[in-house]
Amino acid sequence: MIVSSSELVKSIDHTILKSQATVVEVGKACQLAKKLKFAAMFVSPCYVKLAAELLATGTTKVGTAVGFPLGTQHTTAKCFEAINSIVHGAEEIDFVLNVGFLKAGRYEDVYQEMRAIVLAAKRQQLKDNIKHSIITKVIIEAGLLTEQEKKMACKLAEKARVDFVKTSTGFNPEAGGATQADVRLLRRNLPLTIGVKASGGIRTTEQALMMLEAGANRIGTSAGVQIIEGYKELAMAKK
Amino acid sequence: MIVSSSELVKSIDHTILKSQATVVEVGKACQLAKKLKFAAMFVSPCYVKLAAELLATGTTKVGTAVGFPLGTQHTTAKCFEAINSIVHGAEEIDFVLNVGFLKAGRYEDVYQEMRAIVLAAKRQQLKDNIKHSIITKVIIEAGLLTEQEKKMACKLAEKARVDFVKTSTGFNPEAGGATQADVRLLRRNLPLTIGVKASGGIRTTEQALMMLEAGANRIGTSAGVQIIEGYKELAMAKK
Repeated sequence: MIVSSSELVKSIDHTILKSQATVVEVGKACQLAKKLKFAAMFVSPCYVKLAAELLATGTTKVGTAVGFPLGTQHTTAKCFEAINSIVHGAEEIDFVLNVGFLKAGRYEDVYQEMRAIVLAAKRQQLKDNIKHSIITKVIIEAGLLTEQEKKMACKLAEKARVDFVKTSTGFNPEAGGATQADVRLLRRNLPLTIGVKASGGIRTTEQALMMLEAGANRIGTSAGVQIIEGYKELAMAKK
Repeated sequence: MIVSSSELVKSIDHTILKSQATVVEVGKACQLAKKLKFAAMFVSPCYVKLAAELLATGTTKVGTAVGFPLGTQHTTAKCFEAINSIVHGAEEIDFVLNVGFLKAGRYEDVYQEMRAIVLAAKRQQLKDNIKHSIITKVIIEAGLLTEQEKKMACKLAEKARVDFVKTSTGFNPEAGGATQADVRLLRRNLPLTIGVKASGGIRTTEQALMMLEAGANRIGTSAGVQIIEGYKELAMAKK
């Protein structure tokens, strides 16, 4: 196996972002994430307070998705949503890049937006005297981008000092989800100080391991539990 | 024909909300909407300023989508986005209801959120001394709801005094788009002071006319131009 069981667990950002998720479903997902010690639990902004209460003890961080999934909000609104989420207890902010701006060659606008969100998060961390760093991840929706655009997104993300670049929202059928090729491209085009998060359509242990092999540091998935169970079965079979 | 050509034109909310839309594509859509005199032109929040400039003359209103398409943002963030969009020139605000709250029976929360957005829009209108009313439409993502839930959404929308109830975002594959049955249900369960907007997957003249026949007052579509051209052909054929 390319990673140990605990390494796999620590790479997983367990996720429940669908619009119809109820408070009961979100609560259950948080309990599971805590029990299994996933890296983070990603919930919609409307459930951040709840997740922060449920995950107040334990090692699992609270994450949320900002400007999600289209990334076409106004920059000010994205910053507001990030700050509001941090105030409510979010420790990791995954935000969506403005794909249309990137496609139009408006690189300065894309950079300024990324940087504004990163700085808003840092400022709120200092203001609220939060001891750990707020992690920011920019979702580039790689499936909509050309190779050139993906590389440019990496360059801008590095300049804006985001903590991670993430492949996909998983909510755009036209874009599809994470691919091994995209994870490799991101890994090759980013310094090692910036992580790569693979997400979108990852539902099996095999897929998760493939992404880690390609260089992913985190796996975003709503199938965290199945992936861990599948790992155990695979490990047993190999013995 | 159930409506005249000019009635059809006036029912259309022309729409370009996909994440990869560039400034050039949005600009072109606005010019077409203005030329054809559509009711409104819907653009993402990041393009509201541009649309407001391009549509400053003419009869076509500027619309935008708030909390779109998941509706799972925090209420405060939805209100902020609505206000920010109005400041930038939006005259119509289509916002997405929190489906998970509705499904969990949190009717008071659903109502309070709708009401907060409606009031935020009204307050900003007065503050900026805007002469016409800011129109609010709540998108209920009908394809995810039971009949009971759709009826409850109508009841809450009436209480919150939104101007329209809208069937779908068109961005959720699981939910699908507008159906004649949903438009009829909304029409039957709302007072005539509240409009019905059919949207999601409406790409042909036949579909648009079917929705109007079922009681829709507005048609949200990215195929506004094709629909008008198709109408002319249909009208010619009937002569």
